[in-house]
This record gives sequence, structure tokens and C-alpha cells, in this order.
Amino acid sequence: MNAPIDFYFDFSSPYGYLASHKIEALAARYGRGVTWRPMLLGVAFKATGSGPLPSIPLKGDYAKRDFLRSARFHGVPFRMPEPFPVSTVAACRAFYSLNDPKEQVLLAKALFRAYFIDNVNIGEASQVLKISNSLGLRPEIDSQAVKDKTRAEVEAALAKGVFGSPYIVIDGEPFWGVDRFDQIERWLKEPF
Amino acid sequence: MNAPIDFYFDFSSPYGYLASHKIEALAARYGRGVTWRPMLLGVAFKATGSGPLPSIPLKGDYAKRDFLRSARFHGVPFRMPEPFPVSTVAACRAFYSLNDPKEQVLLAKALFRAYFIDNVNIGEASQVLKISNSLGLRPEIDSQAVKDKTRAEVEAALAKGVFGSPYIVIDGEPFWGVDRFDQIERWLKEPF
Repeated sequence: MNAPIDFYFDFSSPYGYLASHKIEALAARYGRGVTWRPMLLGVAFKATGSGPLPSIPLKGDYAKRDFLRSARFHGVPFRMPEPFPVSTVAACRAFYSLNDPKEQVLLAKALFRAYFIDNVNIGEASQVLKISNSLGLRPEIDSQAVKDKTRAEVEAALAKGVFGSPYIVIDGEPFWGVDRFDQIERWLKEPF
Repeated sequence: MNAPIDFYFDFSSPYGYLASHKIEALAARYGRGVTWRPMLLGVAFKATGSGPLPSIPLKGDYAKRDFLRSARFHGVPFRMPEPFPVSTVAACRAFYSLNDPKEQVLLAKALFRAYFIDNVNIGEASQVLKISNSLGLRPEIDSQAVKDKTRAEVEAALAKGVFGSPYIVIDGEPFWGVDRFDQIERWLKEPF
């Protein structure tokens, strides 16, 4: 069995959301698992001097169009959420407060679905808890241990060079963007 | 005959160079021509508050790796030039000083080849002229009329929302990046 693929993403990233719909099937075709690793784009933006796409002149208008078109291209249900983007600290903490990867992924998918399909503001801690509870999960997002663990995970991602979402690492090889899935697929067949 | 595809690029953009190898065959498969439209990324960066990829923390290191891998993925000969990036004002002026689109494209391909295969510094006006002369072309890069025309073309590109390279526009629909060629191909079949 080959090592699992590292899948870094931010819960409010449209391209991260699109990737979340495709990564598991792609990995499975090549006998791989996926380790889901939410991070905070806001922290990465401080390192790269960037900001949320919609806030950038010219690029922002293009991005809003490209989100919708890319969702249609990949056949993924998508609705532009409002507000956008939102802080994903509570979502991230809820994820990392869980210890079972299956529960983590279950919650991650529900949070993505809430934000990008049902237009629920997952920037609000109360909504994150409500979604979690509906799955029978009881994440602790206010404990210091969970805060520390979340911060350590986000810092570890940055230390590995993760600056965007989605950011996929396969045996040390990094791929940024759902638009690198064609390269990822070829890489999984054989590194080139 | 459908309208030609607008192909915007900067002469020192690796992704623009990769796109230059693919755009004509792709367009031809759908009965389209291509209008080559060099622009100046430096001017666009002022509008978006961005800068050359290698200068950006984290993203820069990734970009250098991705340039090489993307070239291998697309099967395009590529060598990382040094220095990189360079000013492409002289290259742009030489291009726009020519009136025959066939001569423009001939020169554009030679400039790309010089920079990304032969490691010739096309940031130097003398090199641009040498390459032009080797093709039997005599561009005037110092005339005020050519400077004005180049500035007008670059400003027109920005006014159309062009902020990156390559940037392709098909019947008003914009696509940024060589990694949108899969979407471009589907769009040429039928807008989605």
C-alpha cells in the first residue's frame, strides 16, 4: 500500500471544495488513501502577501466567473456563498478536535456542503456546532488543547510550503489547485 | 468561420510560452484562428498588487518547480531562463511595430524560443533586434508611433480585464492559464 495523499484545503475555498469532490476517487484508482488537512488561507495570505480572490482588482471578477464555470466543468453542485469568504477557524478547530479520521472527513464534507450548496455561514461557530451535532459529533472548539492543536497543524502546513487551497502532496511532490488534477493523475500512474 | 481566439501573453511568462505551443492547434481543431496579443505583466501587476511569481514567498518555490513539471506534462521543450523575469517592453514594441500578423507570430515564436530554450536575454533590445533581423524583419522599436501603439494595446488589454498570462478570450469568455486549456477545449465544442 502506498502512502496516503495529503489534501490541504481551506473550508471557504471554492477550488478546495471542488477538489474535495474528486480527491478520494482519484486516489482510490491508484490504491491510495487521502489524509484531509484543513488549514487557514488567511494565515497563508500573510506569508505570501496575498488576499482573498474577490478582493483583488481584475482577478476578483474573473475568479467569481471561474468558480461557477469550474464547478460546471467538474460537474459539482455549487452555489456562490454569501458572505464570502468567511473565517474558518471554528470549522478547523471542530475538525481537529475529532480524533477519528472517518469522523473528521464526515464533518469536512458536511461543512463544505453547508457552505457551498446550502449557503450556511460556516464562519459562525454556532453553525459549525449545529452541523456537527446533526452528525452526532460533539467537537470541542473552545478548549485550549484544540486551539493549540489547530494552530500547530496550520503552522505545520505552512512549514511544508502550503500557501493555497487545494494543495495536494504526493510522496513529497506538491500540486496547487484543482486544475492540477490532470498532472496528479499522471503522477500517480508514474512520476514524470 | 467563427471569430478568432484572443491570445494574451507576456513574452517572459513560462505559462504563456507553454500556451503558445498549444493554442494554434487547439483553435484550428474548432475552425478558429488565433490573434496573438502580447501585453506587459508588469503593468497588470500594478493593477492587481501582485508581482513576479519567483519573488513571492512559498509560491515562488512552488512556481519554479511547477514551470518545469508543467513543461514536461505538456511535452514542451523548456529551460528556466536566467535572468527571470525580464522586461518585455522591447519585445512587445518589436511585435506591434510589424503590421502583418504572420510576421508578428513568426517573431513571437522566435522570441519565446530564444528565451525559454536558448536562454537568450530578450529583455535586451539588442537581442530582440538580432532575433528579428535573423528572420528578415526590421521592427522599429524606438519610434514614438510604435511606443504609443504598444502602450495602447497594453492598456486595451487591461481594460478588457487581462491580468495574467496566458489569458485567452473566446467570444467574450475569459480563461486564465494554460491549465484552463481543458475548459477552453470543451467551450470550443459548446459553451457550458
